Amino acid sequence: MIQAKQITILGAGLLGASLALALRAAGYRGRLVAQGRKPQSVAAAMDFGAFDLGTCNPQEALSGSDLVVVCVPLGSFEEAFCQIEAFAPPRAIVTDAGSAKTSVALAARKVFKNPGRVIGAHPMAGSEKSGPGAARADLFTGKPCILTVCDTDEPRAIAEVEALWGGMLQMRLFRMSAEAHDRAVAAVSHLPHLASLALAAVGQDSGGMAVASTGYRDATRLAAGNAALWADIFLANRDATLDALAKFKAEVAAFERLIESGDRGQLEAKIAPIAEARSNWKGPQ
Amino acid sequence: MIQAKQITILGAGLLGASLALALRAAGYRGRLVAQGRKPQSVAAAMDFGAFDLGTCNPQEALSGSDLVVVCVPLGSFEEAFCQIEAFAPPRAIVTDAGSAKTSVALAARKVFKNPGRVIGAHPMAGSEKSGPGAARADLFTGKPCILTVCDTDEPRAIAEVEALWGGMLQMRLFRMSAEAHDRAVAAVSHLPHLASLALAAVGQDSGGMAVASTGYRDATRLAAGNAALWADIFLANRDATLDALAKFKAEVAAFERLIESGDRGQLEAKIAPIAEARSNWKGPQ
Repeated sequence: MIQAKQITILGAGLLGASLALALRAAGYRGRLVAQGRKPQSVAAAMDFGAFDLGTCNPQEALSGSDLVVVCVPLGSFEEAFCQIEAFAPPRAIVTDAGSAKTSVALAARKVFKNPGRVIGAHPMAGSEKSGPGAARADLFTGKPCILTVCDTDEPRAIAEVEALWGGMLQMRLFRMSAEAHDRAVAAVSHLPHLASLALAAVGQDSGGMAVASTGYRDATRLAAGNAALWADIFLANRDATLDALAKFKAEVAAFERLIESGDRGQLEAKIAPIAEARSNWKGPQ
Repeated sequence: MIQAKQITILGAGLLGASLALALRAAGYRGRLVAQGRKPQSVAAAMDFGAFDLGTCNPQEALSGSDLVVVCVPLGSFEEAFCQIEAFAPPRAIVTDAGSAKTSVALAARKVFKNPGRVIGAHPMAGSEKSGPGAARADLFTGKPCILTVCDTDEPRAIAEVEALWGGMLQMRLFRMSAEAHDRAVAAVSHLPHLASLALAAVGQDSGGMAVASTGYRDATRLAAGNAALWADIFLANRDATLDALAKFKAEVAAFERLIESGDRGQLEAKIAPIAEARSNWKGPQ
């Protein structure tokens, strides 16, 4: 069970507002506080009726908080951490929803006197939509959530953060090092986003959009994601993303050579195991 | 209104069986004949109750047919055309569901004494599933269908084929040359399929599959498609697919350079117009 009597959510966007809705739907009765940079985002997040207080003032939002969830863009994490260190109680537990974890862990170690109360999390529940207006109480349910726990983390902080993401929000919890996380999500999230953008760009320039159908739609769904957020993500996870991109380019080149060669048997033999593994994969529904 | 009293569908797979279901759902009361290579596929297609006759014998299937729809893999088109020329009435109208059109048009001109009765079609309604068991009466409804009509085509054949794909199956009809078709679908269908395969391969090798979520799922949905069918498609549309692949590689390289450079403003400026165009696209629902 979650212990916090007040949870402060920094960032009043899709994730922050969905988090508040999900906590209320799960029966959380404590105080929920939203802090956002723009008054209109805070107002939009308040409109759902899940927050007790919405403010642009970090000090007002953070004082008295037992648990702080950082849901700001990756480029604003260090600033958010400084506000928490300055204004939240020194025993307040901190977690976050950032899509890259090595950079977040480095910022935490730099800013916090006691980084053992900061437990990195990556709830893998996105949407091509952004902003509090797109919030949904079931955004997180059943999706993977990676916790980057290390030996020096406080057990009470780990327990509270697991109670939040796993217990209240019913996500499937995984533990990884920040580095292993960054490699894994580069391959299964950041690279697919990049490929989706490149595919969308080729389609948009092709004169073929009138006849684009469900395949193009699904393959490029990610490309509609917020440009500023994703520029932050690619740079926050730069090394792992570039590694995954190199592997992707090698795969693409292998297909290109087989198509050029015209060797139908080899081409089918290259496709078949990938298609079979993808067919057999039990992904999220 | 469709004139044909007998429609023969060559190929008892997903498309052929869905076509028969859709024709019956649209009220077609003529004779529907299925011809397939494997007895078990023919039997599975017959199980839906839409066909009057199912057979492995092309002569039996084609004699007395007014309209023939070729739904075989692209690698088997020339053989199917030879059977039609040999066994169907000489005025029978021919159309098809092939995903590449230049190679189909070449085969038609090579095989048929009168290629003016052959109207190429590409109904852009696929599925990552294959086989008659996956057939659906609404597979085609509302999706794009490209007709490759040329000046020498018979008006009665054009009218009949438009009545089939547009009238009975309620697809959105487009007319293009075979070459323009091949360029367009290379960009919005064949390239996305290739990228989806390469993405799936990188993910499968990454150790990150346990945390792969909805983004990976959608970006790689196409990769589950039948390997033999897609090997045929890539080779039947080789030149246009390689052209689209070259453009894709240039886009990927542009993203790679921006991520390497770490220039956040330029990276966001590259992403933003693609994301905006994708958000504003009114694709299929």
